[in-house]
Amino acid sequence: MLRLATPGFLRLNQTPVLEMTFGGGEANVAVSLALFGEEAAFVTRLPRNDVAEACLQKIRGLGVDTSKILRGGERIGIYFLESGASQRASTVTYDRAHSAIAEINAADLKWDDILQGADWFHFTGITPALSDAAAQASLDGARAAKKLGLTVSCDLNFRKKLWSSEKAGKVMSGLMEHVDICIANEEDAEKVFGIKAGATEVTHGKLDHARYIEVAEKLTERFKFAGVAITLRESHSASHNGWSGLYYAGGQGHFSRKYDIQIVDRVGGGDSFAAGLIYALGQKKAPQDAIEFAIAASCLKHSISGDFNLAKLSEVEALLAGDGSGRVQR
Amino acid sequence: MLRLATPGFLRLNQTPVLEMTFGGGEANVAVSLALFGEEAAFVTRLPRNDVAEACLQKIRGLGVDTSKILRGGERIGIYFLESGASQRASTVTYDRAHSAIAEINAADLKWDDILQGADWFHFTGITPALSDAAAQASLDGARAAKKLGLTVSCDLNFRKKLWSSEKAGKVMSGLMEHVDICIANEEDAEKVFGIKAGATEVTHGKLDHARYIEVAEKLTERFKFAGVAITLRESHSASHNGWSGLYYAGGQGHFSRKYDIQIVDRVGGGDSFAAGLIYALGQKKAPQDAIEFAIAASCLKHSISGDFNLAKLSEVEALLAGDGSGRVQR
Amino acid sequence: MLRLATPGFLRLNQTPVLEMTFGGGEANVAVSLALFGEEAAFVTRLPRNDVAEACLQKIRGLGVDTSKILRGGERIGIYFLESGASQRASTVTYDRAHSAIAEINAADLKWDDILQGADWFHFTGITPALSDAAAQASLDGARAAKKLGLTVSCDLNFRKKLWSSEKAGKVMSGLMEHVDICIANEEDAEKVFGIKAGATEVTHGKLDHARYIEVAEKLTERFKFAGVAITLRESHSASHNGWSGLYYAGGQGHFSRKYDIQIVDRVGGGDSFAAGLIYALGQKKAPQDAIEFAIAASCLKHSISGDFNLAKLSEVEALLAGDGSGRVQR
Amino acid sequence: MLRLATPGFLRLNQTPVLEMTFGGGEANVAVSLALFGEEAAFVTRLPRNDVAEACLQKIRGLGVDTSKILRGGERIGIYFLESGASQRASTVTYDRAHSAIAEINAADLKWDDILQGADWFHFTGITPALSDAAAQASLDGARAAKKLGLTVSCDLNFRKKLWSSEKAGKVMSGLMEHVDICIANEEDAEKVFGIKAGATEVTHGKLDHARYIEVAEKLTERFKFAGVAITLRESHSASHNGWSGLYYAGGQGHFSRKYDIQIVDRVGGGDSFAAGLIYALGQKKAPQDAIEFAIAASCLKHSISGDFNLAKLSEVEALLAGDGSGRVQR
Amino acid sequence: MLRLATPGFLRLNQTPVLEMTFGGGEANVAVSLALFGEEAAFVTRLPRNDVAEACLQKIRGLGVDTSKILRGGERIGIYFLESGASQRASTVTYDRAHSAIAEINAADLKWDDILQGADWFHFTGITPALSDAAAQASLDGARAAKKLGLTVSCDLNFRKKLWSSEKAGKVMSGLMEHVDICIANEEDAEKVFGIKAGATEVTHGKLDHARYIEVAEKLTERFKFAGVAITLRESHSASHNGWSGLYYAGGQGHFSRKYDIQIVDRVGGGDSFAAGLIYALGQKKAPQDAIEFAIAASCLKHSISGDFNLAKLSEVEALLAGDGSGRVQR
Amino acid sequence: MLRLATPGFLRLNQTPVLEMTFGGGEANVAVSLALFGEEAAFVTRLPRNDVAEACLQKIRGLGVDTSKILRGGERIGIYFLESGASQRASTVTYDRAHSAIAEINAADLKWDDILQGADWFHFTGITPALSDAAAQASLDGARAAKKLGLTVSCDLNFRKKLWSSEKAGKVMSGLMEHVDICIANEEDAEKVFGIKAGATEVTHGKLDHARYIEVAEKLTERFKFAGVAITLRESHSASHNGWSGLYYAGGQGHFSRKYDIQIVDRVGGGDSFAAGLIYALGQKKAPQDAIEFAIAASCLKHSISGDFNLAKLSEVEALLAGDGSGRVQR
Repeated sequence: MLRLATPGFLRLNQTPVLEMTFGGGEANVAVSLALFGEEAAFVTRLPRNDVAEACLQKIRGLGVDTSKILRGGERIGIYFLESGASQRASTVTYDRAHSAIAEINAADLKWDDILQGADWFHFTGITPALSDAAAQASLDGARAAKKLGLTVSCDLNFRKKLWSSEKAGKVMSGLMEHVDICIANEEDAEKVFGIKAGATEVTHGKLDHARYIEVAEKLTERFKFAGVAITLRESHSASHNGWSGLYYAGGQGHFSRKYDIQIVDRVGGGDSFAAGLIYALGQKKAPQDAIEFAIAASCLKHSISGDFNLAKLSEVEALLAGDGSGRVQR
Repeated sequence: MLRLATPGFLRLNQTPVLEMTFGGGEANVAVSLALFGEEAAFVTRLPRNDVAEACLQKIRGLGVDTSKILRGGERIGIYFLESGASQRASTVTYDRAHSAIAEINAADLKWDDILQGADWFHFTGITPALSDAAAQASLDGARAAKKLGLTVSCDLNFRKKLWSSEKAGKVMSGLMEHVDICIANEEDAEKVFGIKAGATEVTHGKLDHARYIEVAEKLTERFKFAGVAITLRESHSASHNGWSGLYYAGGQGHFSRKYDIQIVDRVGGGDSFAAGLIYALGQKKAPQDAIEFAIAASCLKHSISGDFNLAKLSEVEALLAGDGSGRVQR
Repeated sequence: MLRLATPGFLRLNQTPVLEMTFGGGEANVAVSLALFGEEAAFVTRLPRNDVAEACLQKIRGLGVDTSKILRGGERIGIYFLESGASQRASTVTYDRAHSAIAEINAADLKWDDILQGADWFHFTGITPALSDAAAQASLDGARAAKKLGLTVSCDLNFRKKLWSSEKAGKVMSGLMEHVDICIANEEDAEKVFGIKAGATEVTHGKLDHARYIEVAEKLTERFKFAGVAITLRESHSASHNGWSGLYYAGGQGHFSRKYDIQIVDRVGGGDSFAAGLIYALGQKKAPQDAIEFAIAASCLKHSISGDFNLAKLSEVEALLAGDGSGRVQR
Repeated sequence: MLRLATPGFLRLNQTPVLEMTFGGGEANVAVSLALFGEEAAFVTRLPRNDVAEACLQKIRGLGVDTSKILRGGERIGIYFLESGASQRASTVTYDRAHSAIAEINAADLKWDDILQGADWFHFTGITPALSDAAAQASLDGARAAKKLGLTVSCDLNFRKKLWSSEKAGKVMSGLMEHVDICIANEEDAEKVFGIKAGATEVTHGKLDHARYIEVAEKLTERFKFAGVAITLRESHSASHNGWSGLYYAGGQGHFSRKYDIQIVDRVGGGDSFAAGLIYALGQKKAPQDAIEFAIAASCLKHSISGDFNLAKLSEVEALLAGDGSGRVQR
Repeated sequence: MLRLATPGFLRLNQTPVLEMTFGGGEANVAVSLALFGEEAAFVTRLPRNDVAEACLQKIRGLGVDTSKILRGGERIGIYFLESGASQRASTVTYDRAHSAIAEINAADLKWDDILQGADWFHFTGITPALSDAAAQASLDGARAAKKLGLTVSCDLNFRKKLWSSEKAGKVMSGLMEHVDICIANEEDAEKVFGIKAGATEVTHGKLDHARYIEVAEKLTERFKFAGVAITLRESHSASHNGWSGLYYAGGQGHFSRKYDIQIVDRVGGGDSFAAGLIYALGQKKAPQDAIEFAIAASCLKHSISGDFNLAKLSEVEALLAGDGSGRVQR
Repeated sequence: MLRLATPGFLRLNQTPVLEMTFGGGEANVAVSLALFGEEAAFVTRLPRNDVAEACLQKIRGLGVDTSKILRGGERIGIYFLESGASQRASTVTYDRAHSAIAEINAADLKWDDILQGADWFHFTGITPALSDAAAQASLDGARAAKKLGLTVSCDLNFRKKLWSSEKAGKVMSGLMEHVDICIANEEDAEKVFGIKAGATEVTHGKLDHARYIEVAEKLTERFKFAGVAITLRESHSASHNGWSGLYYAGGQGHFSRKYDIQIVDRVGGGDSFAAGLIYALGQKKAPQDAIEFAIAASCLKHSISGDFNLAKLSEVEALLAGDGSGRVQR
């Protein structure tokens, strides 16, 4: 997707320029993995025009394999972003209908070829939300991956501006049978699958560990996941969040350390978590280490502009080692 | 439309920011007329989102009546612009399919109300090119205007990326019966109506006056226009053009003075010509004076960034009075 | 006024560009009301030059009626702004002497015409501070408004760089007899009218409700106001403020909820409060609801660059409904 | 003066930022001389505020002695600049009334001290145009300089937005008796002293050498100048000028080579010529060499943004040596 | 190399920002070839730091194979660029001493591996100018390429700020025995090999075809080149050049069409010519077609900011087909 | 040094522009002292090129005497800066090897002339870290200053990327015998001289006063300093620090008030502290007042972009007087 963001904290009617970057769930994950040193390929469909070309060049430059991307269709999805501050929320204006990926012919993706040599397949709940065709493509991919023995992960990523809870629940349920690792944030489990625990005042922070364990248990029970990861965000304001996570596997919940974050850009925070988790699990880290890695990686993402997590492995490791002091490195 | 242009002469893969302005045929004409002191209303359909709101605020600020604009639909049309230089042409990447105006329900425009008190109706060939619905809306407007006794003008504005010559010819022919003043650039008459004169090497400049008279005559003959205006552009390069025009009325052709232009931004040049012509004819200027005014106004447009002609009436008049020296006014 | 601000936190000797926006007490109020959907006209005097024209276009674009503005005079007032951060205060360098409004001929404003159809007249203490002529214009307006039965509100807005407490007290006292609703921040009542309560350590926060009630009571007593509104700012630093308000009417004080604000731009905060209050009272909200609305609206202003409060009604309402979490809307 | 220019070719209503630089006749001359390696002091009056401080720091950084500048007054003069292109002229909006220098008390300048050790005094016709007080200061300076044996030069620099030809003629005539070297552009001699030769179509280029000799002769005759320098500008458009000059001394006219200039910024062109002439005459160059140097220096100024001529001596010398090819130096 | 350029036409002491791009002879050629659709690898040595990483990502994004690049050393070479205009030349301030490539250990480059599967090896005269080690690396590469049967091309690219004519002549002569295609601009042959023809006034344009044939002949004679390409630049000013070329092969000289160019950025012009020539010869185009292609490609480069030629193959082909009119493509 | 910083919080691979300012230990101190009204000269060695010229102009403009600076050498040192935020640390990429100052011939500095009329000599531990020659120059300067009776201060400023603790300890120990006032931050005493007190968890804040007194005592004992100043930074994150200081003299420790800082730019924080201390001690302030002044001055520096502390004396004094509320001054 093309991301067109106003500079600083400007509103759309204040600025004569928009910052042009690229992003989107799966792309964000692929970029982060590539920067951590993993081989990562991004699979989507992009039109043949100069905007899409710029997108491809950017992602390829960051080390992602773009050779599997289909070309065709009319347009690349766009979203306009106003970054909020303090009590004012960031706003996203979607303009992604009729994008090339939404109008994909699912059969054009030859998954057996695409997945050759891979050991992990990740997708998000945004793609199936775009269109029935995109949902089919996701399903084909997940099914093929599962069959080939890859680990399959899915970030539920519910977007109320894209589809209803009902539709989401139906489509995503069908996908879950191929999924090993399920990733969700606070609202996803409830909005997509109607799974929730007690209190619901997540808006004002104060998280209850037991409730999240309960949600993870219920998800695991229903879909037989090997692992469930939940990001716990305490939204004090658009400028200040608490950030931690839970990884639930083998009947055991592992909560990470919590970071107090001054936010530069929180879009893509969940994707950077997914990438961190995939990296850590791929490196065979223990559950507690994996959730710590994923949360540390995504903590750093919040200090970086744009959808992509440009944090380096060495930076994540320094933070894990306890240095969140932000001292100048010189 | 939302215009997203790269800064300076940058290409789309060189810039992290896009310049965000608004434009589009009829809007450009309305803005120029408003700045010349005329009452001008812009009629279109825009979605209910922050991007469209910014557009409305801009146009309203420049003095255009925006109260007739319908709200609804999914998106505002977008075009990406790379400004060329020297031998490198500017490129336009359209992303306007499924725009609010393309998906208009023509019947929602109550033309009798909209046109009340007006004395001129202008449209371009771009709107009917967007969709059948938009073509119907154009037709309804032109027909209603004609019936109410307004002068109706149309700028053919053929865009090969939007429709074929065949479709254009068919649709535009149906519209022409309601048109009094036809405006065209060099290729329009041929591409839309198959009307041309002798030589066709317009690419390298050297214009032949007789040929243009012939084209105007043929147009007049076929559609019974009260006047035909043709802009004559000599494209030496993306940086340097010759610019003049012909106004043909009453069996008589009137050629304007020719300006040698160092180009800042030529997009919207034709629209500024249309606005200049409408202004001049509305002011009851003689044909020669009208074409001189229209060409001088649009000459100045080429020195202004963005689609809109922000030249002031006093500046057009100074140029008409012979001062194209560009001396500092102090 | 023309506002020329350094970008980010730069000082005037660090930057080769200044951000050019427009603002000023009454204009800020008018813009906010227009964006909330009210009909609002701004009355002032502006010179006939391109800078003033840009100002007019901006305000008109945002929906304010600019047709009552007188044209004439030499210059538009200017202020240079350096935005502070942490312990460094923002600084304002005024260059507003001899502005068109300061050199107005009060008699040129035909208030009976201007106020026709209006139901509210608002002015600030800045205008009378500019010159005797401007004070006369304010007085004429307030008197005419009162006579015509409009509600009249005044934001005391004392500026020590513009006039002395003595002069302010004398002039403002004369104006108060036509005022229904008086708006003040912490220092205004004391600096203009010598009205204060106990402690004075407002610099370091910790507000005492009783003291503010006392001030409101004394103001009400002296000038027979129908209502007194006081903004309560706890200035922890240039980056971080507490923000709440008191509305006192009918012998009763109503304190709003307090917001903890990460500041983007606090200039215009008071004006956005005035606009919020006028909107809420105009909508016949109860006193408690009115002060909550005004404080919520102005809380959001602190997250917006420039003098104008570009917050939307829906955003104010969401904050009032309890969502200050700054979560991304998507 | 503070110069606030729109970026690129934008109009004042298109840009949210203004480029902030400093300039003004005598300052421009002083800066150019300092960069050529001469000791140069700038004498004016500036207010005590942060804008003036930024101005002082800039000029001092470029090597000009700022220790003679008086501090006081209300404001620094401002001008807003829109750079023109092609047929659209640059426009200057002055906001310099009531500036510190205009409201100077002429007696505050202790010229005998200020001029100690100096051998040249230069002023322009802009300063006396600002106010009677500024005219008096100019007169005092010129008289003191003459008495102390300095060479005195004056650039007539007529500005119709500042005063009338009548006033200018009267005041400037009084000043001329102390002047040795008179500098003028095409219109100055006529507008200030009513001195002209035959044809007057300077607007469209085509200069007649004999006419300029005649003007120089008449000036010399009336005021007994030791030398008269005239810049000859052929204004083809705002983007393209011819540029040459005449130096008339000892009854002999010396015309420079003519340069064909693609203009980046022509404001300050005349001042850079004055500086070049003063430098060359100060270096005891022959008349022909002096006019060639002055024209080459000011030719380069047209390729530099801002009022100041930041061309280096080595660059002027390379151009004089015949290299105007613009080849990359590497 | 890291290229740090002032924006627009600003001088280094005018700007608080520098435009950061990457470039350098061989990199520029590789990028252009990759964008034309060829497989191209860039071989150099870059340090392990974030600046070099950004460079790698940029080049990789544009499609160049960066896997052969050695990592190590202290720094990446830097050059500061001021773009000239009109009579003012662009200036380059080199800061490339001690760069990673200059301090390479030539033996670290395993050319037999690097060149596997390649059919062309290109280098420029800049690399050997950096240090003896870099010269050795160039020699090793050229020798290995020749032995493996690749076509070897060299762009002489003499830089007087890097080495003397004497040193250049000696080193480059040794390299030439492995070169098939020699590329030079006007001065290279003379400055490096002392080869020249009659007149030498290339500074002011007016090129003499016979002289260039003579130079090509002499080069061919001395070094037994299969082909010699010479770019013919007529430097009217920094803003305006004539541009054409000669390709001499088989005893026959082929001159291209000449383009009249309004310059956006001429740095990298020669490299884009080399890339165009390599592409065309690689595509087995006839000599006349090859020189036309190379000149058209590099003509377009002059309209593009930065060292890289981002022109697309379709744009070069359109220009070759005769369309240099710069008409908007829409 | 040339400082090339990414804008905002961008990483080096995200930005096409770098912010170009100048800085470096001793320069930062000189600028701050000059802005406080002291006469300050900066002594270093800079190459003869346009980058160094821009540096000189900037520093001279801010009031520093640059006449003692040697010219020569190849290059100016460079550092690239990415500003961190929240848990992400700022990163500095040095490119300062082979700089003009590192390759100085120490004997070229004629200290007896340079120091004439001065009463204070300050240097930092960065200069001796650059090269043996620079260490020699520092030693010569300190020795000459001591002999001439100046007060000599040194900021240890250990940089692990420049030299090892061993080398630093050896070189700095030799310098200390000429030093009166020693300035250090938390790590310097330990890394350079192996002097430390109990706990070492400075990374997470929580400072222990007794430990710092102990360090100061040990330093004083070993080197017979007249005073030791230590800055105490509590690094909560890259965005939020606690900041206070200790001045130890006459066997007595004086701790300043602690400021809670929202960081704009912390580079140069230590230098602004040194300048504040030198200013205060030079003004004969008592130890407690001196440390309060130095900490207040450097507290304000953290709110200012760039290496230089552009805070005004009046601002420091207002903060000392208790106003850290950041209220707008108007």
